[in-house]
Amino acid sequence: MFERAERDPSMDEREYERRELVLRTELLQQQYELLKQRDRAVLIVVAGVDGAGKGSAINLLNEWMDPRHIRTLAFGEPSVDEAQRPAMWRYWNALPALGQTGIVFGSWYAPLFKEAARKKPDMDRIAAMAAEILRFEAMLASERVRMLKLWYHLSRDAQVARIDAQLADPATAWRVSEADLKVRKKFGRLRAAGEIVLGATDAAYTPWQVVPGADARLRAVETASAVLQAMRGPLPRAPRRPPLQVVRHGDRSGAMLEPAPGGGKLDEVDYERQLAGWQARLAEQVRAKRFRKRSLVLVFEGVDAAGKGGAIRRVSHALDVRNFDIVPISAPSDDELAHPYLWRFWRHLPLHGRVCIFDRSWYGRVLVERVESLIPPATWRRAYDEINDFEDQLRRGGAVVLKFWLSVSREEQLRRFKERRDSPFKSFKLTPDDWRNRRKWDDYMSAAREMIARTDTAHAPWIVVADDDKRTARVKVLEHIVKAMDEA
Amino acid sequence: MFERAERDPSMDEREYERRELVLRTELLQQQYELLKQRDRAVLIVVAGVDGAGKGSAINLLNEWMDPRHIRTLAFGEPSVDEAQRPAMWRYWNALPALGQTGIVFGSWYAPLFKEAARKKPDMDRIAAMAAEILRFEAMLASERVRMLKLWYHLSRDAQVARIDAQLADPATAWRVSEADLKVRKKFGRLRAAGEIVLGATDAAYTPWQVVPGADARLRAVETASAVLQAMRGPLPRAPRRPPLQVVRHGDRSGAMLEPAPGGGKLDEVDYERQLAGWQARLAEQVRAKRFRKRSLVLVFEGVDAAGKGGAIRRVSHALDVRNFDIVPISAPSDDELAHPYLWRFWRHLPLHGRVCIFDRSWYGRVLVERVESLIPPATWRRAYDEINDFEDQLRRGGAVVLKFWLSVSREEQLRRFKERRDSPFKSFKLTPDDWRNRRKWDDYMSAAREMIARTDTAHAPWIVVADDDKRTARVKVLEHIVKAMDEA
Repeated sequence: MFERAERDPSMDEREYERRELVLRTELLQQQYELLKQRDRAVLIVVAGVDGAGKGSAINLLNEWMDPRHIRTLAFGEPSVDEAQRPAMWRYWNALPALGQTGIVFGSWYAPLFKEAARKKPDMDRIAAMAAEILRFEAMLASERVRMLKLWYHLSRDAQVARIDAQLADPATAWRVSEADLKVRKKFGRLRAAGEIVLGATDAAYTPWQVVPGADARLRAVETASAVLQAMRGPLPRAPRRPPLQVVRHGDRSGAMLEPAPGGGKLDEVDYERQLAGWQARLAEQVRAKRFRKRSLVLVFEGVDAAGKGGAIRRVSHALDVRNFDIVPISAPSDDELAHPYLWRFWRHLPLHGRVCIFDRSWYGRVLVERVESLIPPATWRRAYDEINDFEDQLRRGGAVVLKFWLSVSREEQLRRFKERRDSPFKSFKLTPDDWRNRRKWDDYMSAAREMIARTDTAHAPWIVVADDDKRTARVKVLEHIVKAMDEA
Repeated sequence: MFERAERDPSMDEREYERRELVLRTELLQQQYELLKQRDRAVLIVVAGVDGAGKGSAINLLNEWMDPRHIRTLAFGEPSVDEAQRPAMWRYWNALPALGQTGIVFGSWYAPLFKEAARKKPDMDRIAAMAAEILRFEAMLASERVRMLKLWYHLSRDAQVARIDAQLADPATAWRVSEADLKVRKKFGRLRAAGEIVLGATDAAYTPWQVVPGADARLRAVETASAVLQAMRGPLPRAPRRPPLQVVRHGDRSGAMLEPAPGGGKLDEVDYERQLAGWQARLAEQVRAKRFRKRSLVLVFEGVDAAGKGGAIRRVSHALDVRNFDIVPISAPSDDELAHPYLWRFWRHLPLHGRVCIFDRSWYGRVLVERVESLIPPATWRRAYDEINDFEDQLRRGGAVVLKFWLSVSREEQLRRFKERRDSPFKSFKLTPDDWRNRRKWDDYMSAAREMIARTDTAHAPWIVVADDDKRTARVKVLEHIVKAMDEA
């Protein structure tokens, strides 16, 4: 894998000058073409052994291309706020938009390299980490993010020579950190780690490319050629990755997505009493010390007029207004459309100790976007796995994730539509879209049924709440939250 | 000020129902009108004594209006990342866009109330805090953010009765926090604090409105009426506020904005040696433990081809790529245009221990936007004070702020333009705009001269660097940064 790079190949000056001229011109042209076409985002991962010129390569790209459309993102230790979100949070936030180029340094590979460089790497753990990375990168590939993963490498002798030369010159000695000096002693182990990582995460849709780092000219030319290729080559076919293995929550095949009309009703006194009781318990749970290491993510879905807003208000009344956010989800903005689908939801993930309530959510992909044919079938089909994966990351980041499907009968929906239509201050809630969606009732029900079947996991269960009687439904929602918090 | 509210006025049910119907209908209509017109953003500050119904008022607005276009922002203690930025950072980030409504709870008034509620409030400190708030709100008013500041108030008896009633009912007892119980004993002191704060921060363009809180119906009607008024009333005239008193950096009247041609040149060997020396020192400074409580903000301005990019690269080469961001500033996006001008710069402010380099900056307002008449003169005229204020907040938040004006002679610029034009990989840097700007050379120079005269402060000095010889200029830039860091 590293044979060629460890022969430390070089390029003579004349050849370099000839290639440089062509490459710089093409890179720039291609970069503007990319901005115009917006058919992809380019994401370059930079990694490799120390002293192999990673930093120089990043500088080179910023010098040879128009730096206004490149975003270089170098990650070190997570900040405190970052550490309270799932590990991938900061990378999601940094994803380039269509037409843009992102360079990532200190990427999601850092923990994997660390594990692989241990004296006795845990190969099971490595396999699990690699699988997670490949799922992430498969999602990126499907979402038109063209990845380029560059591993800079050189021979042990060249590494030693390079560090010695830097140390010998007082003008550059400061560049050599103590870590570099340590690393130098560990060339063999880091090389082995590189082999493990590259072997485990190399895939046709997201290949690694090894760039010889000893010779500045050759390194520049190979870096630029690889980037050029990523910018103009064909987009790799969206891959099928083995999905995350999820534990199902339970048998939901008989879930009452359409409640039978005329269920029991709760009278006002009972309602107020029960509601206040659950609210009190939720308020306690959220204030408890234990919750400072957790967060709560609530998703509300259901057909129009299913009572999402009312249920959300009953939950939020139990909370200190400083501790929660309600995120209403509607059609994506242009900026959101230019990023991978889940990007706009990642941005809202709560800090520890906080509650985030989504009024509609990422499930729009397998509901409205599917039913209204806004996306090709392949896109919503892969969304189930991506969503399970996303919610699993939420859970591992400390979140309790609960998803409510408020189910209302067709008759009750019609009654509520009419009520809205006739009320001067509710009519805004009723749009022509609502009537149109209603005509597609059966399509929505069957999409919802498949959604629940495929995403009802132990780590993020669906709770179907019959909402023909709003009071009963609101009490049930609160009861479920309190019980899930107790368990967590 | 609180007489009426402390009489605990109320509204009978019939009157309420009549008003409610009209108000809800109008609020919704007006909200949609606002979204369509986008002539303002509405920002509602909610404050007041405990038990006066602040939370209910927020819930009411979210219930009566379309909550998808309201953002309620409740701030508690700053998070760790927030605490590393200037105090106003999180409020800037939360400003509503034109057409939107924001509700702020736990606002920039919190520290002021805290000071005013002390046993012996420090009136000088209060005056300084109030002046800062009024400068901020004057800026908002000038930027079409219509503020509404609501103070909820009730009599001491009503407060006691309300808390007792909540405590007596097990269903609501949980709402009463220990803080509430304490507060109850301090009614007098909080009332006095309210009087101090409201007196100090009431201005025609940003008035306080006292809402009686004892009666839910009256409170609802008065809250809704006030919001309605803010949404449709005339925008207050942009005010003149006394600006922040700044300490000038020094006499810059003779600054060489256009260097005399043919200055001294630095030969390559000397250049490399000197540059590496300063880079080494900067690298040390940034790695030093002291810097973990500071940050560094660098601004680069200058005419086209003045050498900003090259100078920035020489600075960034001294830094670990994980520790800095380069933010290139060009024309604002739609989203940026919908917010107060400085909003897009606030977003990029660095965490402690980090460096942020602006390639062009907020000075665009008093350079290109002024010279090209993109904004009315009144707008760029008030920008000087706003910028001084902004940079002072940066400094108080722990940042070292340095601003470089790279100055190049007209002849040298022409030479560089021609070089760019003739180079296949530099021609992208040269646009028709550049030639057009060049024809306005004198206008740019006089705008730059005024900018430096008005914003060259001790807390954020301008450093004019003659750049006809790039090497000399780059060494000078690094030398200035190192010396300023030493002083700080």
